[in-house]
Amino acid sequence: MIQQFDPPKRRLLGPGPSDIDPRVLKALSRHTIGHLDPEFVRMMDEVKQLTKYAFQTENELTMIVSGPGSAGMETCFVNLIEPGDKVIVCQNGVFGGRMKENVERYGGTAIMVMDDWGKPVSIQKVEAALKENPDSKILAFVHAETSTGVESDAKALCKLAKEYDCLTIVDTVTSLGGIPTLVDEWGMDAVYSGSQKCLSCTPGLSPITISPRAVEAIKNRKTKVASWFLDLTLVMQYWGGGVKRSYHHTAPVNALYSMHEALLMLKEEGLENRWNRHQEMHVVLRDGLEGLGFSYLVPADCRLPQLNAVFLPEGLEEAPIRKRLLEDYNLEVGGGLGDFAGKLWRVGLMGYSARRENVDYCLQSLKEVL
Amino acid sequence: MIQQFDPPKRRLLGPGPSDIDPRVLKALSRHTIGHLDPEFVRMMDEVKQLTKYAFQTENELTMIVSGPGSAGMETCFVNLIEPGDKVIVCQNGVFGGRMKENVERYGGTAIMVMDDWGKPVSIQKVEAALKENPDSKILAFVHAETSTGVESDAKALCKLAKEYDCLTIVDTVTSLGGIPTLVDEWGMDAVYSGSQKCLSCTPGLSPITISPRAVEAIKNRKTKVASWFLDLTLVMQYWGGGVKRSYHHTAPVNALYSMHEALLMLKEEGLENRWNRHQEMHVVLRDGLEGLGFSYLVPADCRLPQLNAVFLPEGLEEAPIRKRLLEDYNLEVGGGLGDFAGKLWRVGLMGYSARRENVDYCLQSLKEVL
Repeated sequence: MIQQFDPPKRRLLGPGPSDIDPRVLKALSRHTIGHLDPEFVRMMDEVKQLTKYAFQTENELTMIVSGPGSAGMETCFVNLIEPGDKVIVCQNGVFGGRMKENVERYGGTAIMVMDDWGKPVSIQKVEAALKENPDSKILAFVHAETSTGVESDAKALCKLAKEYDCLTIVDTVTSLGGIPTLVDEWGMDAVYSGSQKCLSCTPGLSPITISPRAVEAIKNRKTKVASWFLDLTLVMQYWGGGVKRSYHHTAPVNALYSMHEALLMLKEEGLENRWNRHQEMHVVLRDGLEGLGFSYLVPADCRLPQLNAVFLPEGLEEAPIRKRLLEDYNLEVGGGLGDFAGKLWRVGLMGYSARRENVDYCLQSLKEVL
Repeated sequence: MIQQFDPPKRRLLGPGPSDIDPRVLKALSRHTIGHLDPEFVRMMDEVKQLTKYAFQTENELTMIVSGPGSAGMETCFVNLIEPGDKVIVCQNGVFGGRMKENVERYGGTAIMVMDDWGKPVSIQKVEAALKENPDSKILAFVHAETSTGVESDAKALCKLAKEYDCLTIVDTVTSLGGIPTLVDEWGMDAVYSGSQKCLSCTPGLSPITISPRAVEAIKNRKTKVASWFLDLTLVMQYWGGGVKRSYHHTAPVNALYSMHEALLMLKEEGLENRWNRHQEMHVVLRDGLEGLGFSYLVPADCRLPQLNAVFLPEGLEEAPIRKRLLEDYNLEVGGGLGDFAGKLWRVGLMGYSARRENVDYCLQSLKEVL
């Protein structure tokens, strides 16, 4: 006999989803209206404006994809890649590998630039790959690798791509709202993120933004976009940009209410303040974890404040401790992925989760458990 | 200066989304937990069980796609179609046209069986197409056309497809929960629906179910599925079915809470009672509308009770009246699509919207406005 589901009150200090502010949850459950209702359309315009603020961009094609970050990723790749296109893909963790999958499934050729997990993308290797492959159309990389907690130098990579006349596709799922992600200033072209990390919105949405030169490339495609659902030439009409809104698919109405509220809270706090908050909470957590014998995978100069990949003190098995934290302390921290499965933890301090109260609770719980 | 968004309290009697029961909205805003949390995984098992009940199926591969109905549609097509496949596509409204788009974008050839908008798919024409194209792999059709309010004979079409050794892809976006949709008894193979119609769940999710013979076809593909995000061979691992759950993408946690609650309410009410409720409310609405001079597009024997496509009384312009209903009565009814734009209304009575109170309010408002 199935009962109503009453989730436990966890604190989410994993790699996402992060804790959600009660204001955002309240917005989520507001009265549903039609997706073509003028009031809803007005709200969507505001969501667009707020998303432009979050990305620090003036790109007209800035919107929320009606699916999780993976759908946002696929939106960028499926619209920009045509069969035969050469794409330089940087891989230094799980998500670079997904980029490769995306390129190949849409008929492109992926030139891989490999770096060790936990290391940032090597600018030198990318430059060498660009030199060797002057016919490359796109450079694709992950700004903040969720699998390892490393930041790559997005600014330098975008500059390099421009020099070699390449478009960029940039994964900012874990960076947006947590560290500077300056789309226009750095010259990123097709950028996707996720709702459930440093924006602390309900999981299942993906903000994206596309530069005018990437829009041109999409408009000049010789072949149809392989996906109807993610075809930006169709979706654009729905999200406006000079054209009359036409029906494409039913928008996730309530989820977009929560996105509106989460982005409004970001605006109220201010991007710089939010970046600083992530940094400050990271320092407290880091000192505490190192004091307990944890050590970081990633060197300090390219470490993400919002995602702390740490090895446990010598001799401890990670899984049983993580389980105990969840069951006895209602505290979620993440395990490792890939080669790091069973070897490290990923402790996230993202968005609403990045509060002193949570850091203290986490450190105190660890002291008791270890 | 952007403010918090406070949506007006509309009554949703359009083609979807439908009104949402307060229980479902409450579930939606429950505390977010991790998508790999054992408690969440347990809830997903229940969602799967309840979805099997809604579809009346024992199909092991029954799940919720993390996107709207269009994503569910694309999931069925992208997984079953390989380049060169021949697909018989029945079109008698907007959504058959989308099926054609899907087939062609994935490299298939669509053999179109065309019927007038408002008429059900012709069994005779489909049989002729099957005879002429014995190498067809799939028959695709819409069970309940949201653009016209017509029901096609899914049972007869599936029987025919089996005789000609074809798989079926069936759009049940507007039928599921509103009229009998018997997946196993009728022998449907790949079936998708939407959350926001007769299930009265938050918009943005798509329940799907895939028969064992369709699963076989997917497993025997010679080419990779074109979409990583919608690749069922990967998603299957996440939704279980004997295999250990592995991470694919971050599930839309809160939306799935609301799906759990909406499906639980369907189970509590019972499918037959829900079908009957839709029929009973339809009769009251129909009598009232006809009394006011409205006339139906679709003949009574293939008319969907949950979606009433009606012409306005002679001489009335539809758009200003629809606008007045929305603005002065907070009542949403839908306009026409395609050739019917500006010519008819689509009055939906779906799920929680299908209540006597709403029907009376709708008829009373119309009396005042006309």
